[in-house]
Amino acid sequence: MNRSTETDLIARYFAPLAAEGGLGLKDDAALLRPRPGFDLVLTADALVEGVHFLPEDPAASVASKALAVNVSDLAAKGAVPVGFLLSAALPGDWTDAWLAAFAEGLGRAARAFECPLLGGDTVRAAGGLTLSVTAIGEVPAGRMVHRMNARAGDILCVTGTIGDAALGLALRSVPPWSGSLEEAERGFLGDRYLHPQPRIALAGALREHARAAMDVSDGLVGDLAKMMRASGTSATVDLDKVPMSPAVRRAVAEEPALADLAMTGGDDYEILCAVPPGNLASLRREAEDLGLALAPIGIVTDGTSPPRFVEHAGERQFRSMSFSHF
Amino acid sequence: MNRSTETDLIARYFAPLAAEGGLGLKDDAALLRPRPGFDLVLTADALVEGVHFLPEDPAASVASKALAVNVSDLAAKGAVPVGFLLSAALPGDWTDAWLAAFAEGLGRAARAFECPLLGGDTVRAAGGLTLSVTAIGEVPAGRMVHRMNARAGDILCVTGTIGDAALGLALRSVPPWSGSLEEAERGFLGDRYLHPQPRIALAGALREHARAAMDVSDGLVGDLAKMMRASGTSATVDLDKVPMSPAVRRAVAEEPALADLAMTGGDDYEILCAVPPGNLASLRREAEDLGLALAPIGIVTDGTSPPRFVEHAGERQFRSMSFSHF
Repeated sequence: MNRSTETDLIARYFAPLAAEGGLGLKDDAALLRPRPGFDLVLTADALVEGVHFLPEDPAASVASKALAVNVSDLAAKGAVPVGFLLSAALPGDWTDAWLAAFAEGLGRAARAFECPLLGGDTVRAAGGLTLSVTAIGEVPAGRMVHRMNARAGDILCVTGTIGDAALGLALRSVPPWSGSLEEAERGFLGDRYLHPQPRIALAGALREHARAAMDVSDGLVGDLAKMMRASGTSATVDLDKVPMSPAVRRAVAEEPALADLAMTGGDDYEILCAVPPGNLASLRREAEDLGLALAPIGIVTDGTSPPRFVEHAGERQFRSMSFSHF
Repeated sequence: MNRSTETDLIARYFAPLAAEGGLGLKDDAALLRPRPGFDLVLTADALVEGVHFLPEDPAASVASKALAVNVSDLAAKGAVPVGFLLSAALPGDWTDAWLAAFAEGLGRAARAFECPLLGGDTVRAAGGLTLSVTAIGEVPAGRMVHRMNARAGDILCVTGTIGDAALGLALRSVPPWSGSLEEAERGFLGDRYLHPQPRIALAGALREHARAAMDVSDGLVGDLAKMMRASGTSATVDLDKVPMSPAVRRAVAEEPALADLAMTGGDDYEILCAVPPGNLASLRREAEDLGLALAPIGIVTDGTSPPRFVEHAGERQFRSMSFSHF
């Protein structure tokens, strides 16, 4: 079977996903008319085969993840998605079947996140599949939620549960860790690694109630340290309060060393935020109304020393704070 | 010498290039307040080692080219640059020296094109260096120059000279073509490959006088065919009128087969536009005032058959119309 040329490939797989501003992907560029009274929020995250996903991951899942991790950044900034551009560097052995599945997954994610395709580029990779997404969101003017605004006394909160994706990946590492988890638990953790769920619904509540926020992508411990550093503050975190799924609790009970992996492993795509104490009840109520778990895990403190992580047994030191590429 | 971590690397090499909206690259996202009355134009182009540049190309040149090819798309749409995001996937053997040179070249290009860094991502590559840039430009509302608006009777024009970069690359292919070009001619062609010059200055005149435009990146013959297809038109092009540099003329005189490479080889980053006859004199005058060559090379015609390319010797058929990745 003949493979598509670059032009055919775009027309066949990507043009059907294009928003109006994408001009059917038939132009050199996309057109965006910003809404008066709104700021744009722009973020770019790349996903690389063997680094951010595994070669055997389903094409649809990889596509969905590439968009989800970017939309997650928008949500953490209080922004609502407007659209995205995708640069896809395809390895030599791509097939039309693979690309069809990829486009299907990308389209499904774009609809779910209400973040349509605006444009992009398709090129040959120098090695493994490499996906670069730039996502654009909007916030009412002046209302972006920054990372650097946390203040001493703010309550640190995190959405969802932490560590699922890191353990989901560990289940697939060589040699795999498995323990005695049940099939359903293993499936849950694997799914959390493959299919991050950006917390878009929380964007409005973050704008209203949070002072600072970021998404947790490189591990809670390291990302929290980054937020405190950017804000010129420190923090005390109660590790016993960090929300963990039943599957992670069971894995950690069985193999306590996994607790560190859960807290530093990354790929959570939950939202960490710093909330003035007077806003906490409102934020929790709105999160609850949205069906989103939101847990207070600590407090922002004065000073610039690294955050302290305490637990019932005392203080915990993390050897590696977060995922690092280099 | 210890290499930088990801956070250090961004702080050290990229943060100094960041625009105000880039927030010092210390946040998850960039902030852009669109100017009232302007549309945004968005384009994404990726550059891959071994595909769009050679492994031995200087880091500063690669960086500059990654931005230039995107700004070239903006210029062809009549847009003025606002800023860009860069996703850089770095191979395992990057060094601080390489990255310092890369950032220096990127910063120089960003200043030259008045297109500051807004944000991005730095990850580990699965193979060769892969750079994805998303560039953002602005046009007065409703004034983007589209690719699809050419009409029968419009004059086709192209800026600069065509074929320099393709021959510059041929000089470096294995085995290299060289002919009897002089050192200065070889240097000129090599520079045209390494350092494309986006025609930013022409953006305003294109908005005023052109009906359709695109940049010539994949070869004049194929790109012209794309513009005609998008517009639902055909064209007749006089190849004798396509502007060629003295170096290309000399190379083609010596080895006539190179004429095809010059017309289809790509990497020109000149602008092809379709101009209503009544606007031609004004556009030429404005281009001249800007010190930019602009040559009429043909005419848009009715019908949907592929463009005809004629020359003194008759009609020419191109076996391969343009550069293709797949």
